[in-house]
Amino acid sequence: MVLVSPRNPLNIGAAARAMANFGFEHLHVAAPFAPNWREARSAIGAPELLHAAQESATLAEAVADCTLVVGSGTLTYRRPEQPVVALPALGALVEREIARGGRVALVFGSEKHGLTREDLSHCHCLVEIPTDSRQPSMNLGQAVAVCLYELAARSGAEEQGRESAACAQQGAAPGNASGGVLERLAEVVETVMAAADYSPSAMQQANRHDLRLLLRRLAIRERDARRMMGLFRSILFRLQHGSGEEK
Amino acid sequence: MVLVSPRNPLNIGAAARAMANFGFEHLHVAAPFAPNWREARSAIGAPELLHAAQESATLAEAVADCTLVVGSGTLTYRRPEQPVVALPALGALVEREIARGGRVALVFGSEKHGLTREDLSHCHCLVEIPTDSRQPSMNLGQAVAVCLYELAARSGAEEQGRESAACAQQGAAPGNASGGVLERLAEVVETVMAAADYSPSAMQQANRHDLRLLLRRLAIRERDARRMMGLFRSILFRLQHGSGEEK
Repeated sequence: MVLVSPRNPLNIGAAARAMANFGFEHLHVAAPFAPNWREARSAIGAPELLHAAQESATLAEAVADCTLVVGSGTLTYRRPEQPVVALPALGALVEREIARGGRVALVFGSEKHGLTREDLSHCHCLVEIPTDSRQPSMNLGQAVAVCLYELAARSGAEEQGRESAACAQQGAAPGNASGGVLERLAEVVETVMAAADYSPSAMQQANRHDLRLLLRRLAIRERDARRMMGLFRSILFRLQHGSGEEK
Repeated sequence: MVLVSPRNPLNIGAAARAMANFGFEHLHVAAPFAPNWREARSAIGAPELLHAAQESATLAEAVADCTLVVGSGTLTYRRPEQPVVALPALGALVEREIARGGRVALVFGSEKHGLTREDLSHCHCLVEIPTDSRQPSMNLGQAVAVCLYELAARSGAEEQGRESAACAQQGAAPGNASGGVLERLAEVVETVMAAADYSPSAMQQANRHDLRLLLRRLAIRERDARRMMGLFRSILFRLQHGSGEEK
């Protein structure tokens, strides 16, 4: 599980406690606010997994070895660019990915504004907790508890098979490329875009965002990702060293 | 929902918020500690249902008009005298009772020790949240959230099913690039491969085949296919007309 820039030490503690309650172990905190994070870790009764938590400067690093990254949050106020899974269907999806040898990350944003658009560009799909439209926004610790309960209690629920299958196509296939491989591929493609004058500098930010989403939408396999990287590296070499006429 | 002698105003607020999140309205507080209860009710942002909550001196009064009273708590350390329902099965039970015209109460004890033996004697059955045996005891606000999520998700299952089905459709077939578009894309990519010396002539046949398969495996959308074509055309132009230094 990944927490991105959590603010409130009590919420961090509550999230960690919910993990312990439902038997989850690996907590990763991305871009934490140092004093709050320190306070949460030193709290009396903090579960062991909070001490063992990993820390990284960015979400990209946190999910580098994950093949299915699921973002969470209220979708009432924005229109997601990824497929959305209702929480009751998440268990089956996660189980399938793990059975395939993949690694799954469930990502929660900060209490203030949830996951940013930039954060979401690292996600293959989004999970929606079916809350009441009059009060859709959940407390962080409670949202974590509800999601982990669902995963622990109903992983393998067969009733939702169909909808998960749809997302499985998007997010997960055997040997899917991990977040780290996709980031490296995105980097090479971006360099090629620049070298080919495809991407005017004013558009670079938007193009990078679109490229990330695109690569995840494609659910590229590890092998294919490496092949694409090879192609783009050849292109780059040619662009930088002149046309290949001589050969 | 009934809270018996809740201690921490933050927990009372969290419980009320979870109720609002999942569309529950009737909160009853039995034997509250007056100052903590006052503080919880006067908190900024307290949901309406907290102000409308009923109050009574005993649990007996709180559940006087209920036909099914479900107690909650960790059962690890005690042997219950009532039947125990696993949380995932609670929805069906509650639904049946309501369909019969009954009234159901879900009862949570205080943070300190949960429901007492006396409290439990008012319960028809107990619900058990399937927590990890190494850390079975949940935070009150989180336990409430998990239980109400289960009840809400169960009763709204039909509706959600429809939504997700619609969403799955959105993500899948419609908008996928047609075979013709994919062929044109493959053609451009192949030309770039040749121009970039990526594909030795002996390998061209095999590479063309792999490329076709790859493009279909990716299930590319029409819009994305056009975008990729744009990129590869830019690359091709640069490869054929020298590096873009002059621009």
